[in-house]
Amino acid sequence: MVLLSLDQIKELIHGMDLLPQIEAGFRAYSEGRTVVPPVGEMLLEKGEVHIKYGFIQGDPYYVIKVASGFYGNPDLGLPSGNGMMLLYSQHTGSTECILLDEGYLTNVRTAVAGAIAARYLAPEGVEQIGILGAGVQGRMQLNSLKGVVPCRKALVWSINEAELAPYKIDMKADSFEVETTRDIARIADECKIIVTTTPSKTPLLHANQLKKGTHITAVGSDTPEKQELDPGILRDADLVVADSIPQCMERGEIFQAMQAGMLKKEKIMELGRVISGMEPGRTSADQITVADLTGVAVQDINIAAAVFEAHQTKKA
Amino acid sequence: MVLLSLDQIKELIHGMDLLPQIEAGFRAYSEGRTVVPPVGEMLLEKGEVHIKYGFIQGDPYYVIKVASGFYGNPDLGLPSGNGMMLLYSQHTGSTECILLDEGYLTNVRTAVAGAIAARYLAPEGVEQIGILGAGVQGRMQLNSLKGVVPCRKALVWSINEAELAPYKIDMKADSFEVETTRDIARIADECKIIVTTTPSKTPLLHANQLKKGTHITAVGSDTPEKQELDPGILRDADLVVADSIPQCMERGEIFQAMQAGMLKKEKIMELGRVISGMEPGRTSADQITVADLTGVAVQDINIAAAVFEAHQTKKA
Repeated sequence: MVLLSLDQIKELIHGMDLLPQIEAGFRAYSEGRTVVPPVGEMLLEKGEVHIKYGFIQGDPYYVIKVASGFYGNPDLGLPSGNGMMLLYSQHTGSTECILLDEGYLTNVRTAVAGAIAARYLAPEGVEQIGILGAGVQGRMQLNSLKGVVPCRKALVWSINEAELAPYKIDMKADSFEVETTRDIARIADECKIIVTTTPSKTPLLHANQLKKGTHITAVGSDTPEKQELDPGILRDADLVVADSIPQCMERGEIFQAMQAGMLKKEKIMELGRVISGMEPGRTSADQITVADLTGVAVQDINIAAAVFEAHQTKKA
Repeated sequence: MVLLSLDQIKELIHGMDLLPQIEAGFRAYSEGRTVVPPVGEMLLEKGEVHIKYGFIQGDPYYVIKVASGFYGNPDLGLPSGNGMMLLYSQHTGSTECILLDEGYLTNVRTAVAGAIAARYLAPEGVEQIGILGAGVQGRMQLNSLKGVVPCRKALVWSINEAELAPYKIDMKADSFEVETTRDIARIADECKIIVTTTPSKTPLLHANQLKKGTHITAVGSDTPEKQELDPGILRDADLVVADSIPQCMERGEIFQAMQAGMLKKEKIMELGRVISGMEPGRTSADQITVADLTGVAVQDINIAAAVFEAHQTKKA
């Protein structure tokens, strides 16, 4: 059995192209080759715990992910989020690897999904990338786009002005030229790729602000309450893509737009089917496209497997 | 974070009196101070995985147990059962301890529950202990009774004759004088404590065989299909005690007797209430008593905590 610390995991991940493995996961999911039981949930006085688990049929592994959020932790100098992934053999049930990633791999696989969405949906010739939210995911999403978009210019907005200067400095170290703004309308006006990464519960981007040819990846809303996009955006969009259609019908932007009567199920495509070419993705420069990413267990399964296999290869 | 191997766990457990902590767990459960969400289940081609988790309100920890059974493993020279327990802080969600017990602690906590049942329900002056099933649990249950019953004589039955001689040798090493038999009627006739530990799906012990004053602990049946006791035994018994009333109404001997119309819910007492003195336990030498143990998550929670705390104390 292999036990990997966060530092070891970061070292293994560094420079790895996770996109193919996460794409394969979305394909397997959309083709019905995954088994993902309902999420286990435990509510405590000071926090909450979620247990996500499942496997891809015919794969060597199954994965159990434990993730927690304890909201008083920052007062104790600890991060609120924590987590680990457990990787087992599908043949014998033996524990192959314990990944003490402290929630890091969930952030990474979410950022990789953003890159995959952009790969199939973003227009050509993007001159500036718009980011809403200057936190961890706001950084990782921008960085992750490096692999699929040549643009290295970004315009970032945050509700918290104090986050903007450090964001600019950090992303400069990652080769991005970042401008900051407190005006969301500028992002809608100037950016052809927009990634929304906030925990907002009221729409930040509005349908009348958007220009033709824009692609939006919405990753902030992963519950029935959170919402970053005006439902009119999904109504007007030429393409609406979900990481999981059943999950997005219960949470996230698609849920909100359906509740508002502005989106019908028939219009939604699933990311795995776009990746495999069963659905078209973007077909013209003028289309408005929206990818709603709520996070699917198969991303956890495949990132855990990728890290473990990288460790085994390195060891060999 | 502490990582404990099976060998380390066995060393820590050795000589420890786990009875008080497991009793405290049953009490907390029966007093409604535990939170135990539904068991997570994953069915694979070659095996199955269960995830049990929960906590006692006000405790320092919550626990997640992963247990698997892969039934082709013995052909590969591996045990079919496997498992681990994960112990976290209720205050911060941080991982305190990973117990790689390979299912061992589940066996131990089951055996300790048998000792607890005997402590409150077995008659005085037992001269011989009857054991049905000569496997791991048949050994551990007998050993566990050492702490609560002075008797060191046992009569053991198994459907598999080949298991009897090794059982006798192993238990002799644990200070028991063991006689073996292929005749279950002898066990009913000669033993005032009987522990049933088989995976039988048809009754092994019958109501007309039992003598007054006998106590039976039934641990083998933990599913709706398994059954070791004739339902008439529960009909005739003076006391019927469940580790968990709601769980025993869905599986085990109590489930079978209720299905057969031979037991009413009103007659069933819960072990935690017997321990805390809210229900009487055995009150006379003539009573026939039955404890039906199907396994409750709070046993896992408290044994994991006990092992971790023993490790911390030893380290300090």
